Amino acid sequence: MSDKVYRASTTAPVNIAVVKYWGKRDAKLNLPTNSSLSVTLSQADLRTLTTASCSASFPASEGDSLLLNGEPSDISGARTQACLRELRSRRAALEAADSSLPKLSTYPLRLVSENNFPTAAGLASSAAGFAALVRAIANLYELPASPSELSLIARQGSGSACRSLFGGYVAWRMGDKADGTDSMADQVAEASHWPDMRALILVVSAAKKGVSSSSGMQQTVATSGLFRERITTVVPENMAIMEKAIAEKDFEKFAEVTMRDSNSFHATCADTYPPIFYMNDVSRAAIRAVEAINEKAGRTVAAYTFDAGPNAVIYYQEKDTEAVVGTFYHVLQGADIGGWKSADIKGLKPTISLDENVAGLLKGGVSRVIMTGVGEGPVKTDEFLVAEDGTPAKR
Amino acid sequence: MSDKVYRASTTAPVNIAVVKYWGKRDAKLNLPTNSSLSVTLSQADLRTLTTASCSASFPASEGDSLLLNGEPSDISGARTQACLRELRSRRAALEAADSSLPKLSTYPLRLVSENNFPTAAGLASSAAGFAALVRAIANLYELPASPSELSLIARQGSGSACRSLFGGYVAWRMGDKADGTDSMADQVAEASHWPDMRALILVVSAAKKGVSSSSGMQQTVATSGLFRERITTVVPENMAIMEKAIAEKDFEKFAEVTMRDSNSFHATCADTYPPIFYMNDVSRAAIRAVEAINEKAGRTVAAYTFDAGPNAVIYYQEKDTEAVVGTFYHVLQGADIGGWKSADIKGLKPTISLDENVAGLLKGGVSRVIMTGVGEGPVKTDEFLVAEDGTPAKR
Repeated sequence: MSDKVYRASTTAPVNIAVVKYWGKRDAKLNLPTNSSLSVTLSQADLRTLTTASCSASFPASEGDSLLLNGEPSDISGARTQACLRELRSRRAALEAADSSLPKLSTYPLRLVSENNFPTAAGLASSAAGFAALVRAIANLYELPASPSELSLIARQGSGSACRSLFGGYVAWRMGDKADGTDSMADQVAEASHWPDMRALILVVSAAKKGVSSSSGMQQTVATSGLFRERITTVVPENMAIMEKAIAEKDFEKFAEVTMRDSNSFHATCADTYPPIFYMNDVSRAAIRAVEAINEKAGRTVAAYTFDAGPNAVIYYQEKDTEAVVGTFYHVLQGADIGGWKSADIKGLKPTISLDENVAGLLKGGVSRVIMTGVGEGPVKTDEFLVAEDGTPAKR
Repeated sequence: MSDKVYRASTTAPVNIAVVKYWGKRDAKLNLPTNSSLSVTLSQADLRTLTTASCSASFPASEGDSLLLNGEPSDISGARTQACLRELRSRRAALEAADSSLPKLSTYPLRLVSENNFPTAAGLASSAAGFAALVRAIANLYELPASPSELSLIARQGSGSACRSLFGGYVAWRMGDKADGTDSMADQVAEASHWPDMRALILVVSAAKKGVSSSSGMQQTVATSGLFRERITTVVPENMAIMEKAIAEKDFEKFAEVTMRDSNSFHATCADTYPPIFYMNDVSRAAIRAVEAINEKAGRTVAAYTFDAGPNAVIYYQEKDTEAVVGTFYHVLQGADIGGWKSADIKGLKPTISLDENVAGLLKGGVSRVIMTGVGEGPVKTDEFLVAEDGTPAKR
């Protein structure tokens, strides 16, 4: 029995949906009530790095383990277990077909994962986390699986994780099979197709963590009288318009659907009983600011969208940086917040002055910004978080 | 020609819907996209007093006029004109049939109107205003019209005004005729049927007046993808459950539909493009407070509802005053706000302590309260705002 430690590392990106996933038709398999579409964000700013390792020398009594941002993380949950089981069984099939292969499927897994952004930012890190976990183990096991095939597995860990297996513009097709084998992601367009898509994230501190998206969406499915219309009519229309807008790099259409779909999603949350509110007065001020920016520009240069929290994600094109980022930068200038990239904000002039109330809410409520843009999918890397001897790397 | 000044005075109540009117299928005739149902509130706390007067001695050159809260008010708008025209033509028909009647329909009208509550409270006063105007002129003209018939006229002034022609529990049936002759109000139950229905209004100061309900609802009709489901499915179900709940004095059902329908209405506002937000963080804190009160009570003792503004209206039954009013009174006690009725709050003990964040928002955002309850419809009165000689009474 060899003492060799097998290792594989990958990074995986965060994605922010422009047509939202909200609602499961099968909670166990993470099958959604509707398709969704997202933009993958650059890993230079937001990414998870995961090393998967295994070895016959790892004590079996230890079992599989995950160290996340330096802390042991519970992987006994059904979602993580489903991912590990699927990946192992695929490896076991390869081993059964070729007896020369080492029996990695029988070794305990040591997984170590780190985000390059603060968890406190309240950004959904589970998508990047499960995408990196699945991609890293697939690399370790040398599975001949396409990103779409891996998306089937990542989906079972966290629905939106399936979209983080691709870069650029990514659709998660809901599928209609009961076993979920057709509920997977595909790439609508490469990042290079429309590379000047940028995102400004306004991190808004919530007084209190809201309802988790996993339980929130099921409350919506169960109680919102308006939800059915969203999944049967609104989202299918939004998906079709959005795919065309991306194909044509039509920012006005992209922006309108992005804003309308975010509104529709939060409307179904507000229609849940009891109601779920993720946005607060600061979030709404960000909407008013985007509206003012677009009005001043005389065309749609910015689009807001909100996930299951108060943070605003504002999409814009690089050419409109001054109109969009310039406005927020000048409003927030006095506030002591981090995240501005000096190269990107240098020389930006304020193009409009916002309503006093809107400006005051933003200034008081935005705790940091993240400036990023569309980016690539998971990338294999030689940066390992597990040393050659199998010990987790020092942080 | 006589110099006699004919006068009639009436009061009319405010009503707060528990199934909301939002959306017109005919903007000119004020025909709604859905039926609605409201509770008429006591005129001891909230009412409009209107005196209608006319005289052959009033100069024709002066035309019709309205003095509202001491200020001349424009009545040239199409909605007010529609009401005056309808009332005059009914009077003219009486005069044509009986030549002994004075030709009041040909005299200029002097209308004087006063609210017993501050306009600044942001309470929809147009419902009480139009109901009082129509009822006062109908009295002046001695029209043999039922409240339902008058509701057809008041509806053309302000949709929800048609519900203020009755006391107690009132439905506005949307009707289906193109000319609107079947779109009128009727009484679902007298106030005396369920007299212990109380309302605590938390007046929340808005930083800025939101979109007017009249234009807001038409934006919703035109742009919300979820609105159709509300009017075709959600509201008809809510109307049916609500009528049954009132008939059976089933507060739990009444409360659930009230809260769900308010949520549904504001959800369609949030789904409007661009989105309309009437509620703010203080409004949402009121919702969380009601949820906490109900949870502590182990049954539903309070129900929130919000109109086109941030004020919370909280329905409860008199027996639950301590659980409901006691909680809000003790949270708001330190804040210098008016409206508490000392007799009603005397000895109320705090039953729960609210979440710190919720309490802080309420304390900082509620500017006054109004304690009231279900009440009667318009009442004829001998209190005149126009003197016998035709001059407006001194305020």
